[in-house]
Amino acid sequence: MCSLERRDRVFLLSITGDGQHRLNADTIASLRSSLAEIRSQVAAAPGGYSLVTAAEGRFFSNGFDLAWANEAGTPSGSRQRLSSLVALFKPVVADLLSLPMPTVAAVTGHAAAAGFMLAISHDYAVMRGDRGVLYMSELDIGLSFPDYFMSLMRAKIADPRTLRDVTLRAKKFSAAEAEARGIVDSVHGSAAETVEAALRLAKELAARNWDGGVYASIRMGAFPEACAAVGLAEHDDEEKRKTFVSKL
Amino acid sequence: MCSLERRDRVFLLSITGDGQHRLNADTIASLRSSLAEIRSQVAAAPGGYSLVTAAEGRFFSNGFDLAWANEAGTPSGSRQRLSSLVALFKPVVADLLSLPMPTVAAVTGHAAAAGFMLAISHDYAVMRGDRGVLYMSELDIGLSFPDYFMSLMRAKIADPRTLRDVTLRAKKFSAAEAEARGIVDSVHGSAAETVEAALRLAKELAARNWDGGVYASIRMGAFPEACAAVGLAEHDDEEKRKTFVSKL
Amino acid sequence: MCSLERRDRVFLLSITGDGQHRLNADTIASLRSSLAEIRSQVAAAPGGYSLVTAAEGRFFSNGFDLAWANEAGTPSGSRQRLSSLVALFKPVVADLLSLPMPTVAAVTGHAAAAGFMLAISHDYAVMRGDRGVLYMSELDIGLSFPDYFMSLMRAKIADPRTLRDVTLRAKKFSAAEAEARGIVDSVHGSAAETVEAALRLAKELAARNWDGGVYASIRMGAFPEACAAVGLAEHDDEEKRKTFVSKL
Repeated sequence: MCSLERRDRVFLLSITGDGQHRLNADTIASLRSSLAEIRSQVAAAPGGYSLVTAAEGRFFSNGFDLAWANEAGTPSGSRQRLSSLVALFKPVVADLLSLPMPTVAAVTGHAAAAGFMLAISHDYAVMRGDRGVLYMSELDIGLSFPDYFMSLMRAKIADPRTLRDVTLRAKKFSAAEAEARGIVDSVHGSAAETVEAALRLAKELAARNWDGGVYASIRMGAFPEACAAVGLAEHDDEEKRKTFVSKL
Repeated sequence: MCSLERRDRVFLLSITGDGQHRLNADTIASLRSSLAEIRSQVAAAPGGYSLVTAAEGRFFSNGFDLAWANEAGTPSGSRQRLSSLVALFKPVVADLLSLPMPTVAAVTGHAAAAGFMLAISHDYAVMRGDRGVLYMSELDIGLSFPDYFMSLMRAKIADPRTLRDVTLRAKKFSAAEAEARGIVDSVHGSAAETVEAALRLAKELAARNWDGGVYASIRMGAFPEACAAVGLAEHDDEEKRKTFVSKL
Repeated sequence: MCSLERRDRVFLLSITGDGQHRLNADTIASLRSSLAEIRSQVAAAPGGYSLVTAAEGRFFSNGFDLAWANEAGTPSGSRQRLSSLVALFKPVVADLLSLPMPTVAAVTGHAAAAGFMLAISHDYAVMRGDRGVLYMSELDIGLSFPDYFMSLMRAKIADPRTLRDVTLRAKKFSAAEAEARGIVDSVHGSAAETVEAALRLAKELAARNWDGGVYASIRMGAFPEACAAVGLAEHDDEEKRKTFVSKL
């Protein structure tokens, strides 16, 4: 489950508890509810904001709740359950890619599969250096990727050799390796220091006082294929030009 | 305004004067006229050529002429003026992306917004190190980007973290930072040294004596989305295969 | 011509002989026949496999057999011959991009034009450091690229400055330069050491025991434009989701 607090202009969304933070219908609903609350507060009082997403414990998120999927008892039931999680999680990525403010993932522990996707759905990622890896486990357990996972990775992990190592080698990246390969922005000594670094960065970004609508529009223009893959309609050129000139 | 001179096989297009070289109907017309003159000379005497674009003074170009747009007096009038500049500048980018010769920007000073786009519309960019920054100012002043700006940046600033820092962080890049991030190719001590370096590179490229039509065709194939965004029709595969085999 | 041997779970495809290994109807047929034989063996006994492609002598492959094309005697005849090679080679790239196992090119010598494309059609490339270059010669001899060459290069050589140096500067990359620019993964002292390194890597990858169908599906999702350019149909989202959940 998630908690949401606000420190001046910075929202801190925390995935609470000590577990693996497996993504299931409940955790996904809690994430979406927190993101909706942020949008609502911002709509009521426009200005410069930013978001930090962090998690308690040793895991940022270890991906979809496969145990719950397997509890269906039959192969077709399990498939249907996993398929429902794939569909439920897609709007979380869309919510983040269209959020009208800078977003920072504080990767405070292991981030695997959908948990890795949650991290790179943010504009920035800072990571704990003393433990934790980034890891797309799908190939190792014989699963392919949903289209929007791959679109998101192509957008945020564009280097072909790094994309290969993530998707086709199922490589586990330490924080230092992830920084060297451009997957995360900086590495910090502990979970607490990682959250502090994320909050510092978020505070600096909120202080820039950017227009949230313009910010989201630029982000969607920068990563159009990932946005399309999660159902965000591209603004047509006419509409963008209107935005472009509306502030003069 | 622009001046055009030719040193053997190298064209030197200079944006003259000491000002900010704001892009308005007059400067854009002057740029296009110079580029048309180059095409005309090359059509008359085919061979290996190249282009250097430089600017006098402290600015390469500080972007569109917003002061002129604001002089319209009404918000809707200002919007219309800026919108007209966006439309007028697009063919400059198309002219450069389809120019049948290697192109080098000598970034001799600040290059912001449309001025930054002018620089990265060239195949190579060399930059003055003692002063000047590259800067997309739009987010800071609450403007989104025209589609073709974003397409050009996605093509030429492909690394997702650098693209983010340019578009979503409105970062001002010094020449050294721009070189480290792969936005410019080399850094030089002064404006004069920058132009000299650009001319040396351009001379070397012209001496390769490449076929201009093949060169332009390869460039358009390498950056198809940016070319499409400025209205350059993609050759169909049939036509390309014809080019491919026409030189045997 | 090609020879195919199998060392436990690693296939070693060798282009035999001391020549330039020019790609013509015979060598292409031999390559395709070896790749078909691999698929057939794997279909009969599913499991973790991998492929190393190497070549004997000083050349990995120097590209299409232009001498044969020119022997047509007339310009239109030469064009038609080259055009036929372009069409014949396309399925080789498709075979490699859809092969249900990791693939490693052991670049044991010069790889130019279509020979360069053969190398980067593999997932990994290791290269001989004591001699040999990677080189797209087309611009130097006045030829444009077939669409699928460019799509493949955009996929595997994504950095815009490296793509420019390969396609628009006809730069000859030594192994060390190619490694620094991310075109090859590692450099080795001699041809024999290069093949040994490729076999070690291939053995490690085969031991991961990945599902070949999932592997190929992920590769095609990672490089969709290159796959489309060689005629590999993209799985629709529905079908991918089925694959995604079919292993639970």
